[in-house]
Amino acid sequence: MPTAADSLLKTALASGVEICFANPGTTEMPLVAALDRSPGIRPVLGLFEGVCSGCADGWGRMRRQPAMTLLHLGPGFANSIANLHNARRARTPVVNLIGDHTRAHAAFDSPLHSDIESLARPVSTWFRHCRAPGDLGTDTAEAIAASKAAGGGVASLVIPADVQWGEGPPPAPPITAASAPRVTDERILEVARRLRASSRCGLLLGSDALGADAQRAAARIASAVGAKLWIETFPARWERGGDLPAFERLPYFPEAAREALADLDLLILAGARAPVAFFGYPGQASELAPAAAPVLLSEPQLGSAAALEALADEVGAAAYGGPGPPPSAPVAVGAGSSLDPVALSAAIARCLPENAIVIDEAATSGLPFYAATARGPHHSVLTLTGGAIGQGLPCAAGAALACPDRRVLSLQADGSAQYTLQALFTLARESLNVTVVLFSNRSYRILQIEMARAGISEPGAASRSLTQLTEPELDWSALARGYGVPAERVTDAEGFGQALERALSTSGPTLIEAIL
Amino acid sequence: MPTAADSLLKTALASGVEICFANPGTTEMPLVAALDRSPGIRPVLGLFEGVCSGCADGWGRMRRQPAMTLLHLGPGFANSIANLHNARRARTPVVNLIGDHTRAHAAFDSPLHSDIESLARPVSTWFRHCRAPGDLGTDTAEAIAASKAAGGGVASLVIPADVQWGEGPPPAPPITAASAPRVTDERILEVARRLRASSRCGLLLGSDALGADAQRAAARIASAVGAKLWIETFPARWERGGDLPAFERLPYFPEAAREALADLDLLILAGARAPVAFFGYPGQASELAPAAAPVLLSEPQLGSAAALEALADEVGAAAYGGPGPPPSAPVAVGAGSSLDPVALSAAIARCLPENAIVIDEAATSGLPFYAATARGPHHSVLTLTGGAIGQGLPCAAGAALACPDRRVLSLQADGSAQYTLQALFTLARESLNVTVVLFSNRSYRILQIEMARAGISEPGAASRSLTQLTEPELDWSALARGYGVPAERVTDAEGFGQALERALSTSGPTLIEAIL
Repeated sequence: MPTAADSLLKTALASGVEICFANPGTTEMPLVAALDRSPGIRPVLGLFEGVCSGCADGWGRMRRQPAMTLLHLGPGFANSIANLHNARRARTPVVNLIGDHTRAHAAFDSPLHSDIESLARPVSTWFRHCRAPGDLGTDTAEAIAASKAAGGGVASLVIPADVQWGEGPPPAPPITAASAPRVTDERILEVARRLRASSRCGLLLGSDALGADAQRAAARIASAVGAKLWIETFPARWERGGDLPAFERLPYFPEAAREALADLDLLILAGARAPVAFFGYPGQASELAPAAAPVLLSEPQLGSAAALEALADEVGAAAYGGPGPPPSAPVAVGAGSSLDPVALSAAIARCLPENAIVIDEAATSGLPFYAATARGPHHSVLTLTGGAIGQGLPCAAGAALACPDRRVLSLQADGSAQYTLQALFTLARESLNVTVVLFSNRSYRILQIEMARAGISEPGAASRSLTQLTEPELDWSALARGYGVPAERVTDAEGFGQALERALSTSGPTLIEAIL
Repeated sequence: MPTAADSLLKTALASGVEICFANPGTTEMPLVAALDRSPGIRPVLGLFEGVCSGCADGWGRMRRQPAMTLLHLGPGFANSIANLHNARRARTPVVNLIGDHTRAHAAFDSPLHSDIESLARPVSTWFRHCRAPGDLGTDTAEAIAASKAAGGGVASLVIPADVQWGEGPPPAPPITAASAPRVTDERILEVARRLRASSRCGLLLGSDALGADAQRAAARIASAVGAKLWIETFPARWERGGDLPAFERLPYFPEAAREALADLDLLILAGARAPVAFFGYPGQASELAPAAAPVLLSEPQLGSAAALEALADEVGAAAYGGPGPPPSAPVAVGAGSSLDPVALSAAIARCLPENAIVIDEAATSGLPFYAATARGPHHSVLTLTGGAIGQGLPCAAGAALACPDRRVLSLQADGSAQYTLQALFTLARESLNVTVVLFSNRSYRILQIEMARAGISEPGAASRSLTQLTEPELDWSALARGYGVPAERVTDAEGFGQALERALSTSGPTLIEAIL
């Protein structure tokens, strides 16, 4: 007899869900058993829940369809929160299935009982506690629809174990999404009027304004009206290279961002929010463009490409003229030169595969990548949109599963990688074509920079101990091999280039430990 | 000029706090800088927040004084939740310091902003968002007092960055705890009366009834009135061995626990709650002793030892007569015999150091340990009280820091160890005398058992994939060496015994990968 768990999976399959990133426990066993009977949904094991949620984020960014996660009660769900925070900020569609105690058992406050709703609300755009087996089909269909609504978000469905094993209702039909949102003609006319009236205007692109068509339209607008153009600092997915315009990201540190935007009297936002600093600092305002009136063209993930194209036509822009000059001179590096982020980025630029997916959680070490590859082959870049570190490795796994015909290059800082290094197991088990470049600078370099910015020129013993990844130094090659991922350690640019070429021509994952 | 962060640390030091398990970010830099000026508080880096909270749990279980954690915003805090759940269930005193955006910046919903209170409430017995630098001294003193109140709990204090760097108020004096709670004479008389009236009574001991004095008193009572006696299944801290009574834990699976308690007409609870099943199962009640009237002698952590001693006197019990017979025949194992949990436990029993601290997160593999060591040298056992896996390695680190003169033996299942394996770095960096016995059975064995219990005799591909830790097999020796922890792999009982002897006579951490 089919259980309600079977109905859930049939409903999900009919709604387009293909994959479930799972770290189940006892309360999820009926769903695991149902997965055995649902070959259309691929189960992928994560050894830690943050791996599952990061994989789902990577999958959803590439597919714009939700992956499911399967998580165990409140504490298991809690382990997934940091990467769900990133998914929420990136507006990635994700559907969490969270098992709970049986309805009768919940009243006894047994050891693993907790307030799942309070934990889930801060990262969920939609939340429901399923109360009866008969509701599980429709609850599932609504969760999936909610994950795709309003540009994409995180839907969390809590399912008591006895609801999972209860008698299955008929699967629910997919809920047809409301017709795709469209920016009104009135708004486009108004933005065009503002652009014409401005003498120092800028465009800030984010989210779905970072697709290929949207960026070409934005380049047309910028040419036509003489606007400066910036990409939001941490894009969820940014198409780059090939014939695309060589735009630059808004700088991370607020002083530099404020300077970049200082002379504008108007800032058009396409798929982006009004720019604010990542953190607050003494004596500094949070707004980065206080002098420029921000005008919203399109909400994130809600029709930015069409709006930019309409706006380009409205301002009488010429056809797209191809990529402009690269943002800065190409980086030259000789063989055997010392291994620093600039040298690494130059080597990456030399062998970046066509159509690669680049996952950037390289923090300070990743900055030179952008200039080095702006005029390279086409690639997609996924960054740490929500700022919760530990996203890179799982996001790479999810993206590789979503796009098996594309190579994935994971640019990864050592400090951040520690939070979800268990993703290396998933790379090995699923034989994913992911090359991890592990930038080993053996420190939380960004924190050392922040301390210097705060005027702490001579950190004491405590500060040093909390910002250095030394005593002992992490051996990333050993860690990778512990998870079944082949690894090599390199200490010079020539060795790095050779290792990267080998890795990119090999099937399955590789980790290159680059000692900076 | 001293900052409010300095006031916080001075207040904490005056209140008896000695250590801070930290994984800070930009919003915690003023507290990190203040740690440089506060040599009385030891900062210990965790590479993942769940390591920090698990360390604090281990420290607090051994010291009954709070450790502090230092965590970064909502997502960083979220990573600590699973082990705070365990601390909450164990009533361990813990004080979380959670940095937040500056007060002005919070309104801008920048990428890392989230609802920290909603995340923290489910694991916190006390929560406060500090609003002004002038309040930080008193808020700290109150947080520390709250962590020790009502038997112990988790206090979470959110501190905006600008509150940390604001002008420091005078440090607040420690808040004197209310006088230690005491079980009333009336309750002791009433329990004694119920015991005399019962013909088939039992005692269930938990929490502070598992100290040495309390257990000796409980043994006197059991002898005097002919009571059966059980230890709660997952004690926070249980003193065992030496001249202590050889009590047994209540079984984990509800059928066995119910059978153990079936013939009782009365169940006295000392430091324990009325026993309930860990999970709900089809057709089974959650209560484990439905026929026995549960009578509370003492709340967890609130005076159980004195109450048991008074009760023993009241029922006219004779003096403590020493440990009874061991709970089952000693396990015999020959050299070179196959390596299974029974053989491992026998070897552990042969070389368990006097006064060791044993951290049991060995799940199914750890069960034979208890019978093998009941009559061994004195030791303390800390178990997975809250059921949120990933507690063992960090708890071992915290216990070792709390008790530098005691050896720590960490009995660790492979599946659970993955959730917080970053604790291995902390073992190495702090040169802790921790011997990790890693039971490598390459599966989530408990889930396979649960599937069999649910009648799934032939798991399908999905079930197998989600419960087996194979393809690839984890190489725990490589993982340990990646974190600077010496490791050896053993595959037979003789080799294990030799490796264990070597490890226990060596300074610093070792991991023994026992291939089952």
